[in-house]
Amino acid sequence: MARIALDAMGGDFAPRATVAGALLALSELDPAHSIQLVGQTAVINGELDALARDSEFASVTAQRNRLDVIEAAETIAMTDKPAAAVRGKPNSSMLVGLRLQADGESDAFVSAGNTGAQMAASMLVLRLHAGLKRPAIATVFPTARKPVVVLDSGANVDCSPDELAQFARLGVMYAEDILGRDNPAVGLLSIGEEAEKGNAVVKEAHQLLQSAGINFVGNVEGRDLPAGACDRGPIDVVVCDGFVGNVVLKFYEAIAPFIIRLLKDSGLDERTMMKALKQLDYSEHGGAPLLGVNGVSIISHGKSSPRAIKNAIKVAVQAIETRMDEHIGRRLQEGVSAAAEGKPVS
Amino acid sequence: MARIALDAMGGDFAPRATVAGALLALSELDPAHSIQLVGQTAVINGELDALARDSEFASVTAQRNRLDVIEAAETIAMTDKPAAAVRGKPNSSMLVGLRLQADGESDAFVSAGNTGAQMAASMLVLRLHAGLKRPAIATVFPTARKPVVVLDSGANVDCSPDELAQFARLGVMYAEDILGRDNPAVGLLSIGEEAEKGNAVVKEAHQLLQSAGINFVGNVEGRDLPAGACDRGPIDVVVCDGFVGNVVLKFYEAIAPFIIRLLKDSGLDERTMMKALKQLDYSEHGGAPLLGVNGVSIISHGKSSPRAIKNAIKVAVQAIETRMDEHIGRRLQEGVSAAAEGKPVS
Repeated sequence: MARIALDAMGGDFAPRATVAGALLALSELDPAHSIQLVGQTAVINGELDALARDSEFASVTAQRNRLDVIEAAETIAMTDKPAAAVRGKPNSSMLVGLRLQADGESDAFVSAGNTGAQMAASMLVLRLHAGLKRPAIATVFPTARKPVVVLDSGANVDCSPDELAQFARLGVMYAEDILGRDNPAVGLLSIGEEAEKGNAVVKEAHQLLQSAGINFVGNVEGRDLPAGACDRGPIDVVVCDGFVGNVVLKFYEAIAPFIIRLLKDSGLDERTMMKALKQLDYSEHGGAPLLGVNGVSIISHGKSSPRAIKNAIKVAVQAIETRMDEHIGRRLQEGVSAAAEGKPVS
Repeated sequence: MARIALDAMGGDFAPRATVAGALLALSELDPAHSIQLVGQTAVINGELDALARDSEFASVTAQRNRLDVIEAAETIAMTDKPAAAVRGKPNSSMLVGLRLQADGESDAFVSAGNTGAQMAASMLVLRLHAGLKRPAIATVFPTARKPVVVLDSGANVDCSPDELAQFARLGVMYAEDILGRDNPAVGLLSIGEEAEKGNAVVKEAHQLLQSAGINFVGNVEGRDLPAGACDRGPIDVVVCDGFVGNVVLKFYEAIAPFIIRLLKDSGLDERTMMKALKQLDYSEHGGAPLLGVNGVSIISHGKSSPRAIKNAIKVAVQAIETRMDEHIGRRLQEGVSAAAEGKPVS
């Protein structure tokens, strides 16, 4: 039984897309799970009433008993400065939603709102696991093979080799718990497969990863990402700093519309293409968890559709069901103890 | 009249693809231009004889009088360590080809061989323009709009803000001379459009670019690259360090095959798609000049086809005809003088 708090006010299309996404999620999730819609009660109830009159959602609204509406008077805007918003809006849907979890009244938090504010608020309210310096955003990239977890994809712009090595370990746990991978293969994003290729931070991270007790397959390159594999085999996790990760992620997002235009100009059928390329839309794959905080905080794209919100809620449920957070805390703790005793970190 | 020295031995498909590419280029270029094929004379003549028997090239071989074959006994392999190769193989096609230019016997050098060695050899033989710390590789990215010059795309992995600002000025000159852009719009690749977004180096580079006397449109994001434009309008030049540039470039290269597979699985016609997506193949757009060296050194993709070699030769001709190198030297000199006098750099 999982209780997912959803920031009903967060995202470019909130509250319509968030409330609709919650209803879609309930229709697909095990009936034991429930959703907490956090935001301005009057606005949320108004959306629920409007959706009840929509034929697409009419049957879904029978699920209303699995929905709690939780009042949060303030809203953090997409354009708010993160630190100021977190300090200045303690009654925002973001802070109220995260506090539910800290207070044991909820199991996960999902938001398509201001990403910087969600990171700052998650670190403040949930705190980081012991031994971690920074959290990382883990994004799932569609590839020609299985999806690959790329982290960090935007939480940290300047990273130390040590932080990259921590991201690798967080990514392994995500790949195991959420993607169901066994002994996930980890690649370090660089500009050549040889250990001596890369910038100063990446070269040092390469050395650290070789003795990190994970299935490190070495450096991978930009071309290996769409392939989901490098010359040495499949990849499950790709580690990079948040600057590179974010540039590649946004590039990836923008490429499908460009290609569709090229192909349309050649007279190919647009509908078929749109359908085929739907899987390139990473927002359809659900939310990106902020890994490292003591709890579950799922970051959704600002432009999230109801379907994307639904998928983010499902990612939250998986994280809860696989006890990913506990798993991360325990493994990090083992790492800290092992390091203190001079043992290799497993 | 331009004389282009081509490294006949460089590239995964050399010498067949290079010699064939030279013949294709001659058939399209003004008859005043000539090509110097640099490498093992016997091997090159053997290829020319073989191509003369090929119906596709039969008429082209009438151009043989515009071809010089220049002996270079050694060859730098793709796997050679750049610094060692440049020191240890003074009679390689790469060093012989570049020395022709230094000696005034040639106007440009094109190679699809070992990129690191080409950079090192170009800096050694041609030297850098005064005032420059590092050269940059300028790659032309196809976009939904006009092509965009991205630099650096691999020559420099750790860059200072000052170096990024220099790349911007080199990129402007390339966009003017080779792409024919007027007052080229320059974007700085980052993870948000606001000046305060980015890593430490990018944030400082942003400040430098604002007073660099160029048409700086501010930060651009990964998504703006396939679009060829940002919210503030079209982009002609995108500045980034060689680590990010190389990751994005290789990612871009690998995406078309992946998308073709997705669409083929949906039953769309493969031939039509291949044709439409041909323009995503940046190697088809010709070579990437190493900007900043005192001369013309064009870096081609290792997997260059004859068509790609031909296009790289055409880029070399354009660089010569527009006097890009002289232009860069003069503008850099003006910058140095203006800075010395405390004037804004134009």
